[in-house]
Amino acid sequence: MEKLIITAAICGAEVTKEHNPNVPYTIEEIAREAYAAYNAGASIIHLHVRYDDGTPTQNKERFREAIEAIKTKCPDVIIQPSTGGAVGMTSGERLQPIYLNPEMASLDCGTLNFGGDEIFVNTENMIIEFALKMNEVGVKPELEVFDKGMIDTALRLHKKGYIKTPMHFNFVMGVTGGISGEIRDFLFLKESIPEDSTFTATGIGRYEFSVATMAILAGGHVRVGFEDNVYISKGVLARSNGELVEKVVRIARELGREVATPQEARKILGLEVKS
Amino acid sequence: MEKLIITAAICGAEVTKEHNPNVPYTIEEIAREAYAAYNAGASIIHLHVRYDDGTPTQNKERFREAIEAIKTKCPDVIIQPSTGGAVGMTSGERLQPIYLNPEMASLDCGTLNFGGDEIFVNTENMIIEFALKMNEVGVKPELEVFDKGMIDTALRLHKKGYIKTPMHFNFVMGVTGGISGEIRDFLFLKESIPEDSTFTATGIGRYEFSVATMAILAGGHVRVGFEDNVYISKGVLARSNGELVEKVVRIARELGREVATPQEARKILGLEVKS
Amino acid sequence: MEKLIITAAICGAEVTKEHNPNVPYTIEEIAREAYAAYNAGASIIHLHVRYDDGTPTQNKERFREAIEAIKTKCPDVIIQPSTGGAVGMTSGERLQPIYLNPEMASLDCGTLNFGGDEIFVNTENMIIEFALKMNEVGVKPELEVFDKGMIDTALRLHKKGYIKTPMHFNFVMGVTGGISGEIRDFLFLKESIPEDSTFTATGIGRYEFSVATMAILAGGHVRVGFEDNVYISKGVLARSNGELVEKVVRIARELGREVATPQEARKILGLEVKS
Amino acid sequence: MEKLIITAAICGAEVTKEHNPNVPYTIEEIAREAYAAYNAGASIIHLHVRYDDGTPTQNKERFREAIEAIKTKCPDVIIQPSTGGAVGMTSGERLQPIYLNPEMASLDCGTLNFGGDEIFVNTENMIIEFALKMNEVGVKPELEVFDKGMIDTALRLHKKGYIKTPMHFNFVMGVTGGISGEIRDFLFLKESIPEDSTFTATGIGRYEFSVATMAILAGGHVRVGFEDNVYISKGVLARSNGELVEKVVRIARELGREVATPQEARKILGLEVKS
Ligand SMILES: [Mg+2]
Ligand SMILES: [Mg+2]
Ligand SMILES: [Zn+2]
Ligand SMILES: [Zn+2]
Ligand SMILES: [Zn+2]
Ligand SMILES: [Zn+2]
Repeated sequence: MEKLIITAAICGAEVTKEHNPNVPYTIEEIAREAYAAYNAGASIIHLHVRYDDGTPTQNKERFREAIEAIKTKCPDVIIQPSTGGAVGMTSGERLQPIYLNPEMASLDCGTLNFGGDEIFVNTENMIIEFALKMNEVGVKPELEVFDKGMIDTALRLHKKGYIKTPMHFNFVMGVTGGISGEIRDFLFLKESIPEDSTFTATGIGRYEFSVATMAILAGGHVRVGFEDNVYISKGVLARSNGELVEKVVRIARELGREVATPQEARKILGLEVKS
Repeated sequence: MEKLIITAAICGAEVTKEHNPNVPYTIEEIAREAYAAYNAGASIIHLHVRYDDGTPTQNKERFREAIEAIKTKCPDVIIQPSTGGAVGMTSGERLQPIYLNPEMASLDCGTLNFGGDEIFVNTENMIIEFALKMNEVGVKPELEVFDKGMIDTALRLHKKGYIKTPMHFNFVMGVTGGISGEIRDFLFLKESIPEDSTFTATGIGRYEFSVATMAILAGGHVRVGFEDNVYISKGVLARSNGELVEKVVRIARELGREVATPQEARKILGLEVKS
Repeated sequence: MEKLIITAAICGAEVTKEHNPNVPYTIEEIAREAYAAYNAGASIIHLHVRYDDGTPTQNKERFREAIEAIKTKCPDVIIQPSTGGAVGMTSGERLQPIYLNPEMASLDCGTLNFGGDEIFVNTENMIIEFALKMNEVGVKPELEVFDKGMIDTALRLHKKGYIKTPMHFNFVMGVTGGISGEIRDFLFLKESIPEDSTFTATGIGRYEFSVATMAILAGGHVRVGFEDNVYISKGVLARSNGELVEKVVRIARELGREVATPQEARKILGLEVKS
Repeated sequence: MEKLIITAAICGAEVTKEHNPNVPYTIEEIAREAYAAYNAGASIIHLHVRYDDGTPTQNKERFREAIEAIKTKCPDVIIQPSTGGAVGMTSGERLQPIYLNPEMASLDCGTLNFGGDEIFVNTENMIIEFALKMNEVGVKPELEVFDKGMIDTALRLHKKGYIKTPMHFNFVMGVTGGISGEIRDFLFLKESIPEDSTFTATGIGRYEFSVATMAILAGGHVRVGFEDNVYISKGVLARSNGELVEKVVRIARELGREVATPQEARKILGLEVKS
């Protein structure tokens, strides 16, 4: 089995200090959390940025600052900016960080409810636009899928030439409006992607460690972090993203799965080393 | 195994006479197609209405006329108006036909892409509103799900008391943006609903008869019709909705599954006889 | 999708004229049934032989006579002798027909209960012996599996070099002691074999046509015949193996799957034309 | 989720001191290993016995001695004698330990290959005999299944009245000749048993901890021990059965699953307290 790539989704756009005071907003806090995750074993930082008051933004300069601060502390870590943005943003706003020459970026593969009146909008035309622009600037997309139909969409857009192989998926499981995070959901998604693909699995909330464990067992990769879950165990807030990563590392060790360094992760994902 | 309930989705909101000249627009055409389907073995007519030029509408009076015309020709058939409407309509517009005292109505359980720039919008709050209003007027919802996450949504809203049991689902498979229509997709959805539920399966386009056949084998029910597919076999346009239903009846007969009358369908679905 | 290969298992070793008077025992009856199946659309005859009183045998001369009689009536049909034999026979007895230069032969991939005190014995060493001898004489094995573990066995023996690729499986479903014949069983077996394999599915008793239909839908191939089931529909005895094959052909036609000729079947299975 | 019942299969009939010098043969060694497992968190001891030279036996007196020695050290542990015995033993020999008034005993639900020339024989009639005798003496059977078809057999025998509900299964996965121990195998078996059943999962060899982890995640129970696997991690021999149990406990703790005491296990399994 390949070594395990751990992605830390250290801040997200929706979780706040009210959920967990350790959620990072400032550049300094973001760098601190990235460093803790990296030290614990994360090789990828999935990155959103915020203004100091916690407001999410896709501002290119803010991303640049955050990336520089992270790179200063952990120069070899892979940084994967989000292109998800926040509700109401245009494609153009959302795409800004891909022009900072990152190695990867997330690419959401469909539209779904996010509870209440909220819709996370990613029309087919937007997906195509995002894919084409990432191809253009040489950024590998992490295909975020929240349900099975989004895998079908990705495969269709691959057939039309918009998305290149080998594809790398992220199964985001347990979001309100998306597929839940049970074993059978996980297995169904895993068996829906092409053999030459790689995948990361992300369990939201109480699904975080069960989904992570299934991914470890199945030869996939794992994402954890405050974006997805703020608890280290039932009712106990995590002290840092590092603590969440440490737990994944312990489970991986029990199950005989070694953890990948950033360089090993690059190799597994087919990323070129960027300067 | 229960007898097989066949639903005919005779017109839909998006398919046109350009796809198949037999697609009904006028009240007379709609009644003709309903009658053909009913004669062939359909016990439920899933109904959209249009103005004579083919423009889809959720207008209550137009629904009333269509229902009366159908009832004249096939008095005991179950009529299930759609509440899907067309892109851009408000909840209020979409809900109109439930106030005509139908026995059932469709209730879409999530938001998803419909290709290009189109989104079929059914936010969580809309789903709740639709469910509550159907409960109020005593209309049984057919829970339309286009992906697994929509089943999870329906189950969650059931737990919160918005959707009553026994639930009746419609797996709509093969829509752009939704789950595809392979055997494994079908089985996964089927195994995701509660034991005491019933379900109908709808395969879009080339999936129509394969999905129908799986539903026949699995003890589920079947929807076919011009809304979903206009071909009787590869490249051959169907002459009527009746011809599509006849094909389902032939397959059911080969597989030893008897076809339900409208009265038998009412019993299976737990519908009260309406006056 | 490939064309559909239909195998007719015309007599078997355990079914008798008491089950259905049309079960063939004599050479003449066997040729008659093979011909009826072939005319209806079968391209492979799965063959057991009996003495005129119905006693099953693996006697080489009896097989030779039966094969000649069949070939006289349908010269191009593929003949696949069974090596299953009857309870208590030695490997040597069971293997006799492979020395008649057939194109295929069945190879049972494990040991299981057959109800009561009966065990169908195929130890791992026997499986290896059968595989090696078939390789030696150039006979393609049809790997009969009665449960998932038998697929795992076949794959293990393939890795050790005993069984060649591309493998051709036969999922025999619904035997007492083996896996049942539900949709989920079928799908699980289908998803357990390598991508470059082919498979035939065989439903025993009441599973015959449901399993056949799933195989048609899934791109697999179908076996029917008196060995597996003697009814054309619930409680109605089939008049001939031909009638069973005709029913499969009708279902295939409804589902848009064309039926393979023997020459097309050879191509699909990678059989060389024998003289 | 229920608390986790851990069964320790401390010796088995086939593993020897050559595989791991800590495999127990003598009564004293057996009691030592049971005690270590119990201290680590096991609530059930799955028991085989041997003569001092390691020869397996189903001798009633030898079982009595072993049980007494274990009970002295851990009075409240549940003891589950095996009725599997060794190749060539009669039903009568194999059934001896059920007459010692244990709370449970294993009951193998089918016949399968054990590699080479070996067959593990449990004909349908033997399964019925074992079930009836266990019912008679009030011993709850743990239904050992090595493949899906054995679940189907157990369900059939339940319908005929031989096996009582709620049934408790043991999925033994990864035996040569049986189903392998992949995630999909596990999920398939789990989804094949009735809702009101309980199950334990046993992964053989390298599958031990991955199968255990899936069972922990899925709300099932776990068996580990020298009978199934002698390594604590790749290439490293376990020092005791206790060490294997400890590892399961650590994984369960990471995943938020509490470990059952013997009394809690009795309640979960519906065992009466025996005197
Ligand atoms: Mg969706
Ligand atoms: Mg078996
Ligand atoms: Zn994100
Ligand atoms: Zn509709
Ligand atoms: Zn045969
Ligand atoms: Zn044992």
